[in-house]
Amino acid sequence: MSDSTAPAGDDSAPTTAETACFEAGIKFGTLYHQFAGTPVSPASAASLERAIADAIENQPHCTDVTVDIDRDALRAELETSPASYTELTGRFLEVTICIAYDGCVVQTEMAMKDGYPLMQVVSVENR
Amino acid sequence: MSDSTAPAGDDSAPTTAETACFEAGIKFGTLYHQFAGTPVSPASAASLERAIADAIENQPHCTDVTVDIDRDALRAELETSPASYTELTGRFLEVTICIAYDGCVVQTEMAMKDGYPLMQVVSVENR
Amino acid sequence: MSDSTAPAGDDSAPTTAETACFEAGIKFGTLYHQFAGTPVSPASAASLERAIADAIENQPHCTDVTVDIDRDALRAELETSPASYTELTGRFLEVTICIAYDGCVVQTEMAMKDGYPLMQVVSVENR
Amino acid sequence: MSDSTAPAGDDSAPTTAETACFEAGIKFGTLYHQFAGTPVSPASAASLERAIADAIENQPHCTDVTVDIDRDALRAELETSPASYTELTGRFLEVTICIAYDGCVVQTEMAMKDGYPLMQVVSVENR
Repeated sequence: MSDSTAPAGDDSAPTTAETACFEAGIKFGTLYHQFAGTPVSPASAASLERAIADAIENQPHCTDVTVDIDRDALRAELETSPASYTELTGRFLEVTICIAYDGCVVQTEMAMKDGYPLMQVVSVENR
Repeated sequence: MSDSTAPAGDDSAPTTAETACFEAGIKFGTLYHQFAGTPVSPASAASLERAIADAIENQPHCTDVTVDIDRDALRAELETSPASYTELTGRFLEVTICIAYDGCVVQTEMAMKDGYPLMQVVSVENR
Repeated sequence: MSDSTAPAGDDSAPTTAETACFEAGIKFGTLYHQFAGTPVSPASAASLERAIADAIENQPHCTDVTVDIDRDALRAELETSPASYTELTGRFLEVTICIAYDGCVVQTEMAMKDGYPLMQVVSVENR
Repeated sequence: MSDSTAPAGDDSAPTTAETACFEAGIKFGTLYHQFAGTPVSPASAASLERAIADAIENQPHCTDVTVDIDRDALRAELETSPASYTELTGRFLEVTICIAYDGCVVQTEMAMKDGYPLMQVVSVENR
């Protein structure tokens, strides 16, 4: 059922939903730390959005990924900069990731909250 | 209780244990995609192990991280190589990460299985 | 002329061509260590190629980048794998980067040689 | 002499010093894009400094690397943050890298200038 090494019947074995949430977390950590730091500009944002989504959708149990890079936030940053590009970081990103694991569906997202990018589980269906 | 945006009483809201497992997954994705690709040799493995553990332990709810880089596997790889170092990747790594979230304790690990690095939840305590 | 801090007339100050080659090297190190480890499959290779090229072309003095991900090599790797994707690494990549710095044009490339990805300067024009 | 593919006698072939500067640039791009984004705090800065230096010194022709992570800048950032760590980025880093290639010695550094991290060649000896 899950990849747990705990023996069957052990109360500490992860449930299907817990394993699904673990899988969702792996995808967020991957997405953020693989692509944060990438040189990005308003002109290159579209190809980066698509490549990030396509890359993460390769991973197991990942049924859908959406990535939005905030062009207005990029432009605001570049207005006060001598450079024409910056590094991708959380404050430019909105992401949703959907995981389906053994019938359980987990919706997750990353968005800015109080000035910080927050990754969170939105819903767990079909536990 | 958790960072969920689902309204209270909604059955699809994540449980504490599900959120704890999500947090554990984030740490594994972070660890792997931040440090995979790092130039590593038997002589530099120890400082890299320590830096990885210290870096990930900074993250929220992460109480303990252990990182072992397999020197024998490194040496075996380098015996057939003209180079004196290689890139860090999953087959050289054994990792354990412990998460404590709102009283719930999740033990997770990454190790080789059938030739591939497998990340998994080992146990969930105090649901 | 260059960004050197060495005083004018100092023989150890870098020439324009040397600075151009330094800039080219920065782009190769950036490209490799930003994107190595990205989950990639034959189906997602095209969007990743484009995003890599667009990202690196953002960087200063970089006039042209071409990126080819070897689909045949990807397919050969996946034939013997239980997974449907792998991690981007040097043996799947062919890259050319052209730098123009203060009139000097440097052509560089990365390609496989004797089983290892080799980054090298192909030509330096208009020293 | 160098790894150039240009035929002998071709004026566009890179000199030893140009190849040495290319090698130095590779190390800077590697260092920055491998480690930028790493979770870091004043307490974990020392182990990260050491691991970065050890990792980059593995690379060919790299004789010495020094890495300083600015604790005062880290603390200033964290004073206004709800978090107890941040992500490693250029404004926290001072780096020197020395390359020796076929007798030519290149000194390079990265440091803040006008609010931006600047990578530059400091000197080229024994051309």
